[in-house]
Amino acid sequence: MLDICLLGTGGMMPLPYRWLTAMMARHNGSNLLIDCGEGTQITMKLQGWSFKAIDIICFTHYHADHISGLPGLLLTIGNSNREEPLTLIGPKGLKKVVSGLRSIAPELPFPLEFIELSEKQERISIKGYQLEAFRVDHKIACYGYTIQIDRQGKFDVERAKAQGIPMPFWSRLQKGETIEADGTVYTTEMVLGPPRKGIKVGYCTDTRPIPAIADHVQGADLFICEGMYGEPLEETNAKEYKHMTFQEAASLAKKAEVGELWLTHFSPSLVYPKEFLDVARKVFPRTVIGKDRMTKSFHFEED
Amino acid sequence: MLDICLLGTGGMMPLPYRWLTAMMARHNGSNLLIDCGEGTQITMKLQGWSFKAIDIICFTHYHADHISGLPGLLLTIGNSNREEPLTLIGPKGLKKVVSGLRSIAPELPFPLEFIELSEKQERISIKGYQLEAFRVDHKIACYGYTIQIDRQGKFDVERAKAQGIPMPFWSRLQKGETIEADGTVYTTEMVLGPPRKGIKVGYCTDTRPIPAIADHVQGADLFICEGMYGEPLEETNAKEYKHMTFQEAASLAKKAEVGELWLTHFSPSLVYPKEFLDVARKVFPRTVIGKDRMTKSFHFEED
Repeated sequence: MLDICLLGTGGMMPLPYRWLTAMMARHNGSNLLIDCGEGTQITMKLQGWSFKAIDIICFTHYHADHISGLPGLLLTIGNSNREEPLTLIGPKGLKKVVSGLRSIAPELPFPLEFIELSEKQERISIKGYQLEAFRVDHKIACYGYTIQIDRQGKFDVERAKAQGIPMPFWSRLQKGETIEADGTVYTTEMVLGPPRKGIKVGYCTDTRPIPAIADHVQGADLFICEGMYGEPLEETNAKEYKHMTFQEAASLAKKAEVGELWLTHFSPSLVYPKEFLDVARKVFPRTVIGKDRMTKSFHFEED
Repeated sequence: MLDICLLGTGGMMPLPYRWLTAMMARHNGSNLLIDCGEGTQITMKLQGWSFKAIDIICFTHYHADHISGLPGLLLTIGNSNREEPLTLIGPKGLKKVVSGLRSIAPELPFPLEFIELSEKQERISIKGYQLEAFRVDHKIACYGYTIQIDRQGKFDVERAKAQGIPMPFWSRLQKGETIEADGTVYTTEMVLGPPRKGIKVGYCTDTRPIPAIADHVQGADLFICEGMYGEPLEETNAKEYKHMTFQEAASLAKKAEVGELWLTHFSPSLVYPKEFLDVARKVFPRTVIGKDRMTKSFHFEED
């Protein structure tokens, strides 16, 4: 299972009625956050998900509205008595930016680990999350992410029998153990069928709608994508400031054949994003206007 | 006239129902802010006072809850089209801390000017504000502030006549002009009576209740003071973490004979500060429990 919460939906600056864009995922007791603007810790508190369980924070890029909440959040995580390492992932320069911000949060009761992205695309397997980071097109280095929860194949009784694997080992092997007995090594792979469909979520902000995005989020159950501008005529602004209109985001969702599209990262001037929902739905009907703390749980498909 | 707004009343971390402690003053078209935690720009937006008119930001100290909102605020001020310099005032190390935080806000359309405090007490006259910064007692270098708006003496007709100052000069001299005519220099001082009582506001957080505070805020119309703990028995915590109880703050207010005391910087564990109002009022009856965006205008006394 994977829980997803869109913590905020604003771009540029936090507003009294709209938190900055950030997303939190929960899987198997481990929380993953993407971006952390000013106030993200407050909407997180309203959501009620654990601070202490935040194992990973991914950054799309280092514009203030995506990272300014980091020092305060780290201190709050510290106050939750976390002692386990926390992994930060983001474009090249991560350590330098974080060290600058930590001038006001120098002491933490847990260590930070850094993964700096420099390739066009990178895969990271961490705490049960299969992450893919891929470069997008903004004014400064910026990455989109996909989060996948893999699902192993079904236990295959016929295969296990055919290989003469002793029945008392079956359940242990299914759970991932490797067993050595009488000189033979038995592995999980020996008793499972082919991997089954997992869960996939794509996340993209801030960027122009480049084809690589559709390629990476292909077939995702959920695609969270920026829509800085609702009005299609604002494409000129979108091009200048390297953002997207609703229409452009919807076109990506359509091309990638995702389950649903949540729009987010609305311009402060876009007070009522719902006014432009139809514009997006004409292109991709399963479009939803993001709302702060919009939450959904994704489950593996029934067999 | 001096308007004072207590933008937030929380300590340590921003909460969904309580912004971090900060104060904004407005005088003669110029705004002065003391401290700027995560979310201060949001409560400021709710208050509706101009971002563009912020000429001065004073910092008490560099714990995150007092400065983490700076990069976002500077960008928002930038978006208000400010181009005039903005002065930052704070303990030694200011430039270094601000430069660290500006790793995510490197470009601003206005210059920053820095005043670093290193003496036990320092006076700064800026934009009509007479500031006094004085060192207090916290875990790291920390300053309290008094803000004074001076009021010149009344126009003294008898004095002006006695010195034979030509009547056409009177009004110009009263407004502050210096006039030279027929080889004689006429100054404002020549036509005014003794200075009249101005307006004085004291601001103190985070600190133990040292005597210097009462000395500096002596006679203030308003004293805004931290009260991290309501329960008098928490004095042990207050001593350990270098904060104050309501009782201790009220004792300072009594000693300093201030007009009124506003308590602020409540611990996140202090959900209902009003429960302890009586404790403070027994010591100093004119105590008020601070509330986010509590605002008051102070006027010169009528003659």
